[in-house]
Amino acid sequence: MSDTRTNAGLDNISTFTKMHVWDVPGERVLTLMTAGNLATTQAAVSLLEERSKAPEDRRPSVLDAPSMFQTARIVADTLREVIEKQSGQGQSAEAFGATLILGGQIAGSPPRLFLIYPEGNFIEAREDTPFFQIGEMKYGRPILVRAYDPKMSFEDAMKLLLVSFDSTLKANLTVGAPFDFHVYEADTLVPGHKGRVGLDDPYFQTVSKGWGDALKNALDSLPTYEF
Amino acid sequence: MSDTRTNAGLDNISTFTKMHVWDVPGERVLTLMTAGNLATTQAAVSLLEERSKAPEDRRPSVLDAPSMFQTARIVADTLREVIEKQSGQGQSAEAFGATLILGGQIAGSPPRLFLIYPEGNFIEAREDTPFFQIGEMKYGRPILVRAYDPKMSFEDAMKLLLVSFDSTLKANLTVGAPFDFHVYEADTLVPGHKGRVGLDDPYFQTVSKGWGDALKNALDSLPTYEF
Repeated sequence: MSDTRTNAGLDNISTFTKMHVWDVPGERVLTLMTAGNLATTQAAVSLLEERSKAPEDRRPSVLDAPSMFQTARIVADTLREVIEKQSGQGQSAEAFGATLILGGQIAGSPPRLFLIYPEGNFIEAREDTPFFQIGEMKYGRPILVRAYDPKMSFEDAMKLLLVSFDSTLKANLTVGAPFDFHVYEADTLVPGHKGRVGLDDPYFQTVSKGWGDALKNALDSLPTYEF
Repeated sequence: MSDTRTNAGLDNISTFTKMHVWDVPGERVLTLMTAGNLATTQAAVSLLEERSKAPEDRRPSVLDAPSMFQTARIVADTLREVIEKQSGQGQSAEAFGATLILGGQIAGSPPRLFLIYPEGNFIEAREDTPFFQIGEMKYGRPILVRAYDPKMSFEDAMKLLLVSFDSTLKANLTVGAPFDFHVYEADTLVPGHKGRVGLDDPYFQTVSKGWGDALKNALDSLPTYEF
């Protein structure tokens, strides 16, 4: 799940999707989410798009890579290429930085999830660290750390993510609705539920309004401090 | 409430109190909390201490100021003085930055609460923004924003603060127990409950262990998402 707010200063706020899904039905499904400099992430995604349609000698393409690991390499190299090009013009690389999350599956292998750094290297989610966050992540992290359970249903995971994003919404202007989501079910090799949840979504309103009371009840359920 | 961890790199972690209480019984009670560069905050606190004991011509002293506003000015000026002295030696002011929270009451006036910036200016808490946080504040903020209620008891506020700090503990190495607290009751003009809550405190353990389950129950109480 990703929010859609980008900003260049407080008075220049726009809505852009930060989620991109590529698929070859029955063969591979890829989901890429982006955080950081919008010019960088848009350029990286455009390059990945172009190269997936280009003649074979101009690839490597994310639609061709033999494994998720190789796919992550292509995405990471493309990201570093864009950042290096920008910062090669006498400006600091940090200003053009971006971080990506890439998840997906290629037929014959299990689904894999990567966090890709602006330096062009990446790490993979494992059992001990089964999820990644990028961007303005601190406000929404405690509820994920506490309530995430690898055995939870997709429906409960949606609820948890909306609660987590709602916590960030309430605290930080750089994160904003609507939220894009993609639920990929392992071994289906086709995109799953995809959609967008806005502030006016009745379910989101129920969760957002109900969470304050639910938290207060949770606090009340703990014993009171005694001096 | 304040944590006690300071660090200069990941392998140089120490415990220092970040809370300082001054009082003249029946006349004034002041509580100062610090975040940021430890050398800066220790120097500022030492200067405030020294000047409160110095001959009258070497003051201004926080134990003499006629109002909380003037007290905040003295603290803010002292902070800026220390930062300017450090950064005057050819180093950037940011590295020596620190932010303070000053709360207290002087006889004849209501209690007041200030947030003091490294630039030496400050803001005051009002009804709309009744509390301040400094330092590594993002992880612990959502629960404060959602569950804080101006009408809550001191005991419930202690519980809320411990839950908030516990969320940060679980996510960030720069915040660590024990936690110092000072509960000042308006118009008493003497320090109230003061103490320190450690990881081995049975109440803290109850809260820390119980909060995960309480959060899961809170999530369960909300309706499930439907695709």
